Amino acid sequence: MEKPVLKALAGKSKKSPVWMMRQAGRHLPEYRELRKEYSFLQLLQAPKAAAEASLQPLRRYDLDAVIVFSDILVPLQALGMDLDFRPGPYIANPLRNLAEFRALPPADFQTAAGSLMEALQILRRELTDTPKTLLGFAGAPYTLATYAIEGKSSKHFEFVKGWLYQDPSGFREILDKLADLTIEYLLLQVEAGAEAVQLFDTWAGELSLETYRESILPSTAKIFEALKKKEIPTLLYANGASHLIEAQIESGADAISVDWRRDISFYLDKIPTTIGIQGNLDPSLLFAAPEKIIQETTKILQATKGRGNHILNLGHGLHPTTPIEGVQAFVDTAKNFEPAN
Amino acid sequence: MEKPVLKALAGKSKKSPVWMMRQAGRHLPEYRELRKEYSFLQLLQAPKAAAEASLQPLRRYDLDAVIVFSDILVPLQALGMDLDFRPGPYIANPLRNLAEFRALPPADFQTAAGSLMEALQILRRELTDTPKTLLGFAGAPYTLATYAIEGKSSKHFEFVKGWLYQDPSGFREILDKLADLTIEYLLLQVEAGAEAVQLFDTWAGELSLETYRESILPSTAKIFEALKKKEIPTLLYANGASHLIEAQIESGADAISVDWRRDISFYLDKIPTTIGIQGNLDPSLLFAAPEKIIQETTKILQATKGRGNHILNLGHGLHPTTPIEGVQAFVDTAKNFEPAN
Repeated sequence: MEKPVLKALAGKSKKSPVWMMRQAGRHLPEYRELRKEYSFLQLLQAPKAAAEASLQPLRRYDLDAVIVFSDILVPLQALGMDLDFRPGPYIANPLRNLAEFRALPPADFQTAAGSLMEALQILRRELTDTPKTLLGFAGAPYTLATYAIEGKSSKHFEFVKGWLYQDPSGFREILDKLADLTIEYLLLQVEAGAEAVQLFDTWAGELSLETYRESILPSTAKIFEALKKKEIPTLLYANGASHLIEAQIESGADAISVDWRRDISFYLDKIPTTIGIQGNLDPSLLFAAPEKIIQETTKILQATKGRGNHILNLGHGLHPTTPIEGVQAFVDTAKNFEPAN
Repeated sequence: MEKPVLKALAGKSKKSPVWMMRQAGRHLPEYRELRKEYSFLQLLQAPKAAAEASLQPLRRYDLDAVIVFSDILVPLQALGMDLDFRPGPYIANPLRNLAEFRALPPADFQTAAGSLMEALQILRRELTDTPKTLLGFAGAPYTLATYAIEGKSSKHFEFVKGWLYQDPSGFREILDKLADLTIEYLLLQVEAGAEAVQLFDTWAGELSLETYRESILPSTAKIFEALKKKEIPTLLYANGASHLIEAQIESGADAISVDWRRDISFYLDKIPTTIGIQGNLDPSLLFAAPEKIIQETTKILQATKGRGNHILNLGHGLHPTTPIEGVQAFVDTAKNFEPAN
């Protein structure tokens, strides 16, 4: 069966498919119900419930992709790091020097990600004979490093950036090792059923273009190179990263997921037609009235039509308080759009 | 006496002067001592202590400007809004519709900002016969609106952006009124002793260039136009706003304070030589070793020398945990720099 998202990632799409970052999760009342039974960590370890959370948005919206319910920090658990959510990620034993990093045990994905792999297998079975693409994902090495080093979401990233500025070669060693870990992790996800994967470099936008290109990009590019060899379609996303676009197009990703801080026309100019574009409605726009959502979504669809490799998405994850009607208006606009007009 | 910062704002500087956003405050042990006696809100209402906090950094570092210790949200207090710090700003009675906004009482700066004006008077006296420039400041209308509407620092700005997208003309009315309020407030600061003023548009970087230019810039430009008529030198700062630079140069500010996400050469290319540039070292770099700080600071000074209107600063406020030695290395590099070489 033809799968619109895979077609777009191959550059052969006639009409933009649609899905949303964080489409599974808190904005859905049925997810909040599920969370009464499972803490976030428990949900990650319960394959059936995680698969259920991944499928919930499909029952409301006609989306073209299902992204498995998981968390970008699972690989740090596989390295023996003590991950908790309070409710943001919290690591009790962050790494503050290279020796600590080198002393980490080999990754144990069987324990840390066995449930995720099982959830992917369930999802792949559930999606048989549907045109829905099953997506896996991982955090990019720099973003993993920020959590491994800061221990939590940071406002200023003083430890991680202090380290990066102070000891670039040690920092590169860390990123390179995290890249290998991520390759292993994503290949496992593909083996379990993921048909394409997205790399989230959540905090890369905090860096300058020059620092990103010199110190971060090589580790990201290493991942995409390994996946390309296996013909696995790939996407790269970073929030607040319009200033990094010139480096992101050198990453080797099949498509770049872009935020809303620049108009789609800016990205259409910057990104070569051989690379796909995903995005880029401001998720806060879904709090406006349906007419406004339809208008702004249509603008993006008009601007990207004919490109063959656009995937409609938000410029950032769906906000937890987003009204269902706003999401519906967004998805319906994609579905009702006629590229011929 | 010649004042290097004022000279730079007039485009006639031979060497970049230096100061730092948030130079007064938590990174200084003597400030933390002061805070044992005064809560943050109490400090804003205690002119002598606020003046003391403003002067503390001068005793350690040879800075060219003193910025008065205050908070960008004082004008909301003047409008009768109930401002608290927990420890981030918290407004118990945020505004959620235009009627509530229109019903606000006229601004009472005498009650809300009398102490600030007194602090400025003290500072101006203290700085007599020194080459130090006394800076006043205010939050830009959009940033004031985010706090007035969200009630606190927001992750997603759903209320404010929902409103902005939904009802652009109502939102413009709010920004225009906040612009008038800000003009009044900054003129009072100048009357009390401020020699130049900086407008902080803290959250503008969350908007797209198109939204910023169309909906936000007119209110900011109105402020700079009013101040230009009175020949008051002005600066504009927004964090994470390299994508807004094309609109910021249309604001009418004498100088634009730029962040570190693009190299200084990017800003030198983009900003006409008739407009000054302030910035742009990543404040996280001050956690690195002095040699690295000296190297990166020197790069900025080399790149901007001869421009005549560069003011060395950080790309964002000083982080509260910054080591004194890091700050010292930054300031000393500026002082020791010989533009002739």
